[in-house]
Parts: sequence; structure tokens; C-alpha cells
Amino acid sequence: MSPDQMRKAIDLNCDMGESFARYSLGADEEMMKFITSANIACGWHAGDPGVMRATVSLAVQHDVGVGAHVSFPDPLGWGLRSMSVSPEELYDYVVYQAGALAGFVHAAGNRLRHLKPHGSMYAVVAADADLADALMRAVRDTGPDVAVLLTGEICREAAAAVGVPYVEEGFIDIPYDAGGGLVFASTASEWAQTDADPDLVADRAVRICLHGTVDTIEGGTLALAPRTLCLHGDLPRAAARANRVRERLAEEGVDVVRFEVARPGSATSTAPVTGVHR
Amino acid sequence: MSPDQMRKAIDLNCDMGESFARYSLGADEEMMKFITSANIACGWHAGDPGVMRATVSLAVQHDVGVGAHVSFPDPLGWGLRSMSVSPEELYDYVVYQAGALAGFVHAAGNRLRHLKPHGSMYAVVAADADLADALMRAVRDTGPDVAVLLTGEICREAAAAVGVPYVEEGFIDIPYDAGGGLVFASTASEWAQTDADPDLVADRAVRICLHGTVDTIEGGTLALAPRTLCLHGDLPRAAARANRVRERLAEEGVDVVRFEVARPGSATSTAPVTGVHR
Amino acid sequence: MSPDQMRKAIDLNCDMGESFARYSLGADEEMMKFITSANIACGWHAGDPGVMRATVSLAVQHDVGVGAHVSFPDPLGWGLRSMSVSPEELYDYVVYQAGALAGFVHAAGNRLRHLKPHGSMYAVVAADADLADALMRAVRDTGPDVAVLLTGEICREAAAAVGVPYVEEGFIDIPYDAGGGLVFASTASEWAQTDADPDLVADRAVRICLHGTVDTIEGGTLALAPRTLCLHGDLPRAAARANRVRERLAEEGVDVVRFEVARPGSATSTAPVTGVHR
Amino acid sequence: MSPDQMRKAIDLNCDMGESFARYSLGADEEMMKFITSANIACGWHAGDPGVMRATVSLAVQHDVGVGAHVSFPDPLGWGLRSMSVSPEELYDYVVYQAGALAGFVHAAGNRLRHLKPHGSMYAVVAADADLADALMRAVRDTGPDVAVLLTGEICREAAAAVGVPYVEEGFIDIPYDAGGGLVFASTASEWAQTDADPDLVADRAVRICLHGTVDTIEGGTLALAPRTLCLHGDLPRAAARANRVRERLAEEGVDVVRFEVARPGSATSTAPVTGVHR
Repeated sequence: MSPDQMRKAIDLNCDMGESFARYSLGADEEMMKFITSANIACGWHAGDPGVMRATVSLAVQHDVGVGAHVSFPDPLGWGLRSMSVSPEELYDYVVYQAGALAGFVHAAGNRLRHLKPHGSMYAVVAADADLADALMRAVRDTGPDVAVLLTGEICREAAAAVGVPYVEEGFIDIPYDAGGGLVFASTASEWAQTDADPDLVADRAVRICLHGTVDTIEGGTLALAPRTLCLHGDLPRAAARANRVRERLAEEGVDVVRFEVARPGSATSTAPVTGVHR
Repeated sequence: MSPDQMRKAIDLNCDMGESFARYSLGADEEMMKFITSANIACGWHAGDPGVMRATVSLAVQHDVGVGAHVSFPDPLGWGLRSMSVSPEELYDYVVYQAGALAGFVHAAGNRLRHLKPHGSMYAVVAADADLADALMRAVRDTGPDVAVLLTGEICREAAAAVGVPYVEEGFIDIPYDAGGGLVFASTASEWAQTDADPDLVADRAVRICLHGTVDTIEGGTLALAPRTLCLHGDLPRAAARANRVRERLAEEGVDVVRFEVARPGSATSTAPVTGVHR
Repeated sequence: MSPDQMRKAIDLNCDMGESFARYSLGADEEMMKFITSANIACGWHAGDPGVMRATVSLAVQHDVGVGAHVSFPDPLGWGLRSMSVSPEELYDYVVYQAGALAGFVHAAGNRLRHLKPHGSMYAVVAADADLADALMRAVRDTGPDVAVLLTGEICREAAAAVGVPYVEEGFIDIPYDAGGGLVFASTASEWAQTDADPDLVADRAVRICLHGTVDTIEGGTLALAPRTLCLHGDLPRAAARANRVRERLAEEGVDVVRFEVARPGSATSTAPVTGVHR
Repeated sequence: MSPDQMRKAIDLNCDMGESFARYSLGADEEMMKFITSANIACGWHAGDPGVMRATVSLAVQHDVGVGAHVSFPDPLGWGLRSMSVSPEELYDYVVYQAGALAGFVHAAGNRLRHLKPHGSMYAVVAADADLADALMRAVRDTGPDVAVLLTGEICREAAAAVGVPYVEEGFIDIPYDAGGGLVFASTASEWAQTDADPDLVADRAVRICLHGTVDTIEGGTLALAPRTLCLHGDLPRAAARANRVRERLAEEGVDVVRFEVARPGSATSTAPVTGVHR
């Protein structure tokens, strides 16, 4: 069978459970219909115990894989600000939050499938090998089959060194720059207005899945081979974009399926999703 | 073998891991040598992720059973103030905190053996059947073999109804009143000066284990049959008291051993500690 | 001039500044056009330093009187749950929060005009003379001319005893029961759907101002003589209700003006708003 | 009168009020006897409303000048970790905390005399002109006669630009390096054991006051002309050091007096303490 004949597949993930107390944020109920992996906030940047329970329950109902969306302890800054934490502190923070979420996951009779750091923690581990190592050890110690969703060479290598299943992530509703960085809105109010065109986002998803490339804001092209694509549920028209992405992927013959990882210790533990052609 | 010939046994528990950030509290290292069960704070009234990791490690080193010491979300009041939470909120708070501690316990290759509510949460579940039920469901959903340390009929029945192993607790360094209540110091500074005589405390322990009775402040006697005795590690001479208790129990032929519970589903799951004569 | 010829007047107040970090709550910008007193959250149940600054600025722009909306330290419960605090603790909490808000008010070149407790703190001081006294002392110590917005005999007397200007509050978008209590939605989601008819609310406002009465849910009538009416800005159609209230009060010849209080020490410090006929 | 005949004078400051809930830290009662300015924690890295009230009261009793010791919102890291805050965020954080402390100061019939940032906030404003400007604007907006205790050229200039009275600070119980930086213990436990010799510290104080120099760890000499010297009250033998410093300064004819600042708008607002010879 030639590569062209292989089925393609991709995972779709979304940050979820970011409401808090009386505050409601994110189109969780709508987005849950379109995605295969949910990154659920653990109460440090967003979410609270009640929201965590409800969001785990919602994910389980939709047969969406449950992951922990861990953060720096910065509710005022919503986890978006860098903090100078030591590797030991980062390890402790991740074990704590992942454990708390796992409590709700186990109570729901399910298992924690993955972990994805939020905001500034995502950025620092992607850039610092010691912090990446601390994160990976925390993920490993959380459970032998918990995968990590991240991006970049530092994280890929840190995961491999520790034996954590690694799932490379790509982004479709936020533009890339030539260095592979994401071009985020610089303020919360700008972010709240970020509203990429659904067709554009769906085209990006298709091209990433079929061709492994994405356009940059500078006009160039970037190669990337993610096994999961992130959709943001806290932006306007989030569900419309997710729906359009699903339609276009279906038209192009790309299956949207949960990532599967080989169990740790296996030689193929960091292998791509079965059937994905790159 | 007649009851008189049976060996007596008791578990000794202590609240641990109540330091926070730069604040140090409690004689954890000393107390760990004397006890068999450690109730480790989960960051809501005391403790933080680093303290939790270190305290779990210390307990594991001393082969002390690890439990979660869960609390209301009241750091300013140190979990000692009542809050009007719903059963659902209490359930969520317990699952969250027990899960977080379990994260560190699993990372240390150990298992969570028990849970004990702290301060005001202890008091409210002992007095309110709905809240007791919520707590027991949270313990059950945390793990099939996690026991609960509490006191009184409401909690015993709530645990039995849900199938949670129940371990009745007694107190020896704080006086009882005729109603079976504990006579706590009414202020933090008074508490910090509470300093019961080691011999008195050790005598109480012996009499509870051998005769199932304790004196009350009114001058009467109370019957109680605990499977674990609590020692407070944040009071002056805490280690001296613990040491004296161990000496006197040894002299009287009472073994200090971790409580053991039958696995849930077993008809004997709420049976007394093996070998304890009451 | 006979009482009948006197102009009537009323103050309209609204809870404001209840957004937090990325969470947005309440129609502050719209409501500010209709009200005369803003109760601004101080970061303990809602609000954060940035929201406080922005909300003070918004109030000053609209020439709306600025007050501190102080709360129990319960972000998870949004200040709606009772906590067993001592009078000393309540005093300290109020001084802290009022001081923090006063910082922003002074920075804006304005002055703190009033204080209103939020949620559960409002309820407990209205029912407990010792806590009411603690609150009033905190208000007095915050500034000699800071008024308190509350309701009921306990609070009126506690304010008088301490010399704090007291402004009786009435409610128009939430029904009263025969005991003078407010019939709140029992859950957050029910609250979020509370949507009283604008005409009904406006009629209540008119009748309270002109006749000093309000209907109860039991079908009876309650006498009340508030100097300020509360409108909730976090409910659907909040601005529509506020607008309708202003229209109807104008039609009936009731002026909407900020309450004024005599300076402390004056014999008239608890006198009604100038010109209000009751 | 020649410079040699002038009386010398210095202010002594100490961080205070860093206890929290049940946690006790720092020898506040002892240190208050030796110092002239107290930097009182505002609840963000340490302290709580009750501790703030008690510490303000203690300072007022000892006629010690009261200042706000403001911090980043990082209780877990005790304000010692850098956070990437914007100038606007830093401004808001300072106004909030200084306002909260001012609430207690005014309640005690006193006035807020100064502000000193804690830990990481001290370090970042000393190194970043935009953050220093934000801090100074917050101090100015807190009160027209509130001084700031800081060090270095960036802060001196930022204070002058905004019109905030500036008080240069020197350190005597922590060594300097050749670059003028402080050589802090790198971990909390090392810090807790930092225990400089009282005679050495007292000699440093004398030499700074009389000669304007201090030795560096590299063996060189640094010129500095502080108007206040910091003593740490949370280290072993803190009171012994403070006592020795007072004895030696007295022997050498250096008065320990509170810094005085000219009122803003005055041409001499940043002038040295009256009578200090440098």
C-alpha cells in the first residue's frame, strides 16, 4: 500500500473547564461535540473543583479523552505570565494539579489520558530543557500511560528521555511566525476578539494533515507534523470553526480520532498516530 | 483463647505537612518516629505542593501509612472556621484534595491509605448526615481501599452505607467533655500553649486501649473504643508525649500498629483492628 | 411648604467591578449611566486590582458615588456562603478591603463615599449585633464621612451607636417575603436566569418612593423607607430595568440623586436624604 | 561648622508583620525596640489583615514609622520569584496593597510614611525603568508625602521624575558583591541559617555611616550613602545584631532617627537626612 492510499488521522484538542465560581468562560458544551481530547483546567489558572467534576463528566459523556491542563499558580494573571520557578517547584505543581484532576477522572470511572501545560508554563518548558525534564518526570510519575501534548524539539527529547508518550501539537486558529512561534494577541481584550475565519482555519487543518505545512505571517511556509490540533473554545465563533474543520477534514478523508500511544517501554512509544501519513 | 489473652493493638495518627512556603509548623520529623498513620495537609488550610512531596517521602521512609488531611478552602482561618458548603461542594473539595495528595503518594510508589478531615470539616461531617454522606462518597470515589478516620455515630453509619472502611478515632492530648466533645483552646495562642502532661496523656492512651474509657473534664467517664489515637505534633513537647505514650503502651502490652481494613465488599470491612480486645 | 409639596428623591446603587482576570461579569458600563452609587468589589469575592482601578475610573467619569463592596474571603463560594468569623476578624477584613479600594479612589482624586457588605457578610451583620458593631467600627475607622448601605434594625442601631452615617437600602428586582427577607434564587444558575419584568420593577421603585410599601410573595404588603434602591447589574435585561426605573421615577416626580449624609457628630447624621418625603 | 562637627544620623528599617494565620515568623516585638521604620507586609507574600492591624499597633506603640511592604501576588513563592508583570499591573498591585495597609494605619490614627517593595518586586524595579516608574506613580498616588525605600540609580531617578521622596537603602546583615548586588542565600533553608556576626554587622553600619563604604565579598570596597539601613528580623540572632548595631552607632556618635523627607514640591524633597555627613 502506498502512502497515498493510507488513511490519514488527526486528534483535535481544546482547553476546557475554564469557568470559575460564578464566572462562565468557553463554549465547552458545543466544543465537546467536535473534539477528541479535552484539556481540563485544574484550578490554578481557571476551573474549580465543581467545574472540574462537571467538565470531566461532560467529556466522558462525549467519549472525549480527558487531560489535565496544568498551570502556574497565578489566578490574577490567568497563568499567562512567566514566573521564575525551579524544576523542583514545577514538578511539584504538575503532580499536584494532575493528581487533583485524576481524582475526578477516577471518580468518573475513567482514566487520565494526557496532560498539557497552560499558557506561560507551556512556553517555558518548550524553551528550557531543565523545566521540560521536570514536567516530563511529573507526567511519568502521574501515570505510566499519560501522554503529554506539547511542541518542539526540547519537549520531544525530554519526553523521550523520561519515557513519556509525546504528542506533537499544532495550532490552526492562531497564526505562526517564521520561527515557529504563535502570534498571540498581546492583550486579553484583543485575544477576546481574535476571530479567525472558519474556512481559513479549516484549510490550515487540512493542509497540515495532508501536506505537513502551514503558512507564516511573514509569507513563508513552515513544516510541521502534529498528531493533535488545538482549537480554542474561548473565542468568538469557536464552534463554527470547529464544525468547519470537521467538515473539511471529512471531505479530504482525514479521520478525526483520539491519539493513541504505545505503552511506555515500547520501542514505538513516540510513534505517530496509526495511519497518519506525513 | 480467651479475650483476655488476646494481644491489644492501636494505631497512632498525627497531622503532618502543615508547613507552608517559608513557614514551618509541627515537629514532623520527630513525630514520624512514633506514629503509624500520617494525615498530610493538602494545601487548602496548610501545606503546599513541595511540603506535600517532602512529607509523603518522610512518611514512606518511616513506613508510616499516608492519609489525606482535607480541609475547607480557608487559609486565613486555617480551616478552623465553619463554612456553609453544600454536600456537592464538600464532595468536590475532598476529591480534589485527596487526588492531589494521591498524586504525590503514587509518585512515591506508595498508596493512599486513609483520609481525615481537618478542623471545621471534621466537626461538620460529624454532625450532619448529608455532609457525612458526601464525604464518604468522595472517599469511596478516591479509591476502593481508602479508609476514613473520624468519630461518632453519624460518620460510622455514613461510612457503612457507602462501603468505606471506617476507623474510629480517639484523642489523648485534648480533654473530652461529658458529651464526647473535645475541649479545644478557643484561640490560636491558647492552642499554641496547650501542653498536656506526657504521663497524663500516656495514661489516657493506656486506659483507652485496655479499658475503653476516658475521664471527662466534668469528672465523669466516657466509653470509647477507637482504633486510632490522635497526637498533635504542633504543640509544645509533642515528641515527648508521643515517646511517653509509646513507652507506656509497650509496658502494658499494647502493640502500636497501623490499622488494617478489610477490602470493601467484605462483610468484615468495618471490623476492629485484628487482635484488639474491647 | 407642606410635605406634599416637597420633591421626592432616591439613590440608586448597583454592585460593580465584579469581573476578574479574564472573566467578565456584569453590565457595568451600561448600568453606570443609570445609577448614583456604585458598590465596587474589592478582590475578595470578585474584582481584582486592575478591575478596581478601571471601575473607580468609570464611576468617577459618570459622577457616580464610589463605595466599597466588601466580602468574606471566599472566592470559590463568591462570598455567598456564611463563615463563622469573629467580630475582630470581620473588622480586619473590612478595614483591609475598604482601604484597598480607597487606594484607587484617592489615586483617582475622589473620595470613598460608602461601604456595602456583599452576599453572606450582608446577611450576617444584618442578623448579629456583634458583627454589625464590628462592621460599623471598621467603616468609622475607614473615614469619618463614609456611609454604610444596609438594612434592618440591628444595623441601623449599630451604625448609630458608632456614629456611622446609615443609609437604609431597599430592593426592587428581587421579591420580598413577609418577614422582610429577600427571596433569592437558590442556585447560581437560577440566579443567572432571574429576570424580573422591567415594568414590575419600575412600579416597585415608584411605590416604595411615593408610598413606602412593597408587595410580598405571600400577597401581603411590607412597609419600608429606603434612601437607596439596589439594582443588580449581573442579571439579564439589567440595563433595560434600570432605564425603565429611571423613566417611571421621572414621570412620578421622584429625583434620582446621590444620598447625602451629614458629617459625623452632627445631630442629623442619620437623617433622611434631603427632600425625601415618606 | 565643619562637616566633621556635624552630627551623623541614620534610619534603621526592618521587614515586619510576616506572620500569617497560625504561622509565626520574625522577631517583630524585639526588633521594634531597635528600629525607626517598619516595613509591614500587606497580605500578598505574607501577613494577613489581623497581623497587619497588630503590627501597625505595635509600631505605633514604639513610635516607629509605618511603611507598606508590597509584593507580587505569589504566596507559594513568598514573593521571592520574578513574575512578568506589566507596569500597569505593578501599579495596580502597589496601590491595592498600600491602600489596604493605609486602612489599618489610618484606623490607628497614624499615617503611612513609606513604602518598600519586597523580594522580587524590589529587584525588578531596581533594574527596569518602566516598572520603577510604575511603582513611583503608585507611591505618589497613595499619598503626597509617602517616601519610597529602594536602592540604585534607576529608582532614584524614577522617584525624582514623579516627585516621590526617595530614601536610599543600605544593607548590613547581607554581604555585597562588587557590582553592588546583595549575596542572598540561594535557598530558603540556607537563608534561615544566615547568621552574620553581630560585631561585623555593627562595624559595617558604623563604616557606612561615617565613611560611606562597605567591603565586598570579592575583597574590594563599595561606596554607598544610604539614609536607611535594613536589618532582617527573620534570621537567627536578629535582635542581638540590632542591639549591637545600636550600641556601636551610639558609641560613634551616630544618631538613629527616622528619616525625614521634605514635602513634595519642595526643592529639597530628595535631600539627605538632616545632619548626615557623607
